[in-house]
Amino acid sequence: MIDINTRIGWIGTGVMGAPMCAHLLSAGFPVCVHSRTRARAQALVDAGACWRGTPADVAGGCDIVFTMLGMPDEVESVYFGEQGLLPAVQPGRVLVDMSTTSPSLSRRIHDAAAEKAVRTVDAPVSGGDVGARNATLTVMAGGDRDTVASLQPLFDRIARVVSYMGAAGSGQHAKMCNQLVVAGTMIGVCEALVYAARAGLDCEELVEAIRPGAAGCWTLDNLAPRINRDDYAPGFMVEHFVKDLGIALDEAYRMGLKLPGLELAFDLYRQVRHSGYGRSGTQALVHVLRAMLME
Amino acid sequence: MIDINTRIGWIGTGVMGAPMCAHLLSAGFPVCVHSRTRARAQALVDAGACWRGTPADVAGGCDIVFTMLGMPDEVESVYFGEQGLLPAVQPGRVLVDMSTTSPSLSRRIHDAAAEKAVRTVDAPVSGGDVGARNATLTVMAGGDRDTVASLQPLFDRIARVVSYMGAAGSGQHAKMCNQLVVAGTMIGVCEALVYAARAGLDCEELVEAIRPGAAGCWTLDNLAPRINRDDYAPGFMVEHFVKDLGIALDEAYRMGLKLPGLELAFDLYRQVRHSGYGRSGTQALVHVLRAMLME
Repeated sequence: MIDINTRIGWIGTGVMGAPMCAHLLSAGFPVCVHSRTRARAQALVDAGACWRGTPADVAGGCDIVFTMLGMPDEVESVYFGEQGLLPAVQPGRVLVDMSTTSPSLSRRIHDAAAEKAVRTVDAPVSGGDVGARNATLTVMAGGDRDTVASLQPLFDRIARVVSYMGAAGSGQHAKMCNQLVVAGTMIGVCEALVYAARAGLDCEELVEAIRPGAAGCWTLDNLAPRINRDDYAPGFMVEHFVKDLGIALDEAYRMGLKLPGLELAFDLYRQVRHSGYGRSGTQALVHVLRAMLME
Repeated sequence: MIDINTRIGWIGTGVMGAPMCAHLLSAGFPVCVHSRTRARAQALVDAGACWRGTPADVAGGCDIVFTMLGMPDEVESVYFGEQGLLPAVQPGRVLVDMSTTSPSLSRRIHDAAAEKAVRTVDAPVSGGDVGARNATLTVMAGGDRDTVASLQPLFDRIARVVSYMGAAGSGQHAKMCNQLVVAGTMIGVCEALVYAARAGLDCEELVEAIRPGAAGCWTLDNLAPRINRDDYAPGFMVEHFVKDLGIALDEAYRMGLKLPGLELAFDLYRQVRHSGYGRSGTQALVHVLRAMLME
């Protein structure tokens, strides 16, 4: 049972992790924090969190440990490394990975933890940095149903909706589905804006004209206006999207699926990254499409 | 100036045209109607419309003629045929093509009409059969701005929004942009559902989980639930979407654009048609994707 004395660990204090952790801290829970770059945790420490030098140190003194990391190799080393969570965690504790990582890795963490009587939940989110700051994220959770349910008082501090998707890895699978839809809308919206500009249409009027109908989507509402004012600041970074699409593609292959839209998206977004937009927002796809004139 | 005595002509009484024409008729305008298949105009004739045997006969006695046809070759013959509109229309009249057709054809109609001092508007719509019945369509209009504005009292009877997009052909260009976005969302949503089923997720729960975030789109809200209950009835028919995507591709090539998402969508939807789903709804894309297992 979670109460106000439940000791929370938090690893990963980037653009997503820092505000999520801050919500738990300001709710009054005792929080221990670790991140690869200590400076990025300083604001949390100033607000009352205890710094811990390694993931193992976090695991040692916390009942529930959350991780929110950028890349699968970080997740791998935070869980399996010599100073990682799994070698140090005590029976009965709970590990919650909110990073977007591969369903296979989530299952591997689950199985390794189960051998130590430790429960794990994969709980990737959508909603981006804005959702993290406003505590309006959507959580897609995989793992034991009762364990996910028991975390609700903590999820309530950082998310608007928690959807239970099934056994370990299912939260990650749901996130992959989310990214598949996002990939499709990104390609559609960016190609429409490239076409519109070339055809001499007013791109702002176009967006207003097509928004109310079957073309309506979050990307058209939120990212098309940014493209129209040449704003490529991230929201969600290209290099993270490439990572997610690569995971989705690996999992699709593993399941014997051929998904041509996903293949195209992965290929295009690698070109976007290669063109120097790795740390731009995903709307930077439009640059690569604009450059793709016919021979 | 349009008043209640303005004589309206209407050509094309299919699933879209019939209810649109009925709205003008029930508003009290005198309406002459023609369609390729007379039986499909009978309900309108019973409601007070005058039947005319050819487009030329419609043009002869009407101030403003609307066309709402399925395929560009029908538009071509209704406008340019021996018994078509253009040979018969009188100076000062207005021709409004609400079909989705090529921007190039719209400009050709405009130029031929201009030689006879006849004004034309290309005014394709989005919103589908439901929008047509409920008079909640979105109109994307190209042509002379004042002419478009003068039609507002008629558009008000069939549409919720009219967006002026620019010179002749611009309405069609805007519709192509609409279809580009729709194509992206269709591919993304269908691939996500194929992936989800294969990963063992509950597809209905998945849709609810990802709807509130960046994956949110009209297609997810409206067509994913149909796929989840195996309902492939059209909404919008595959064969019409193939036609639209083909037009968009031709226009993109003409403008020197390479749009890989559009190319993929056109290729996939031709496979959908070839697989026997030409008269199914566009959500039938999922059948082709499901069959696309890895070798």
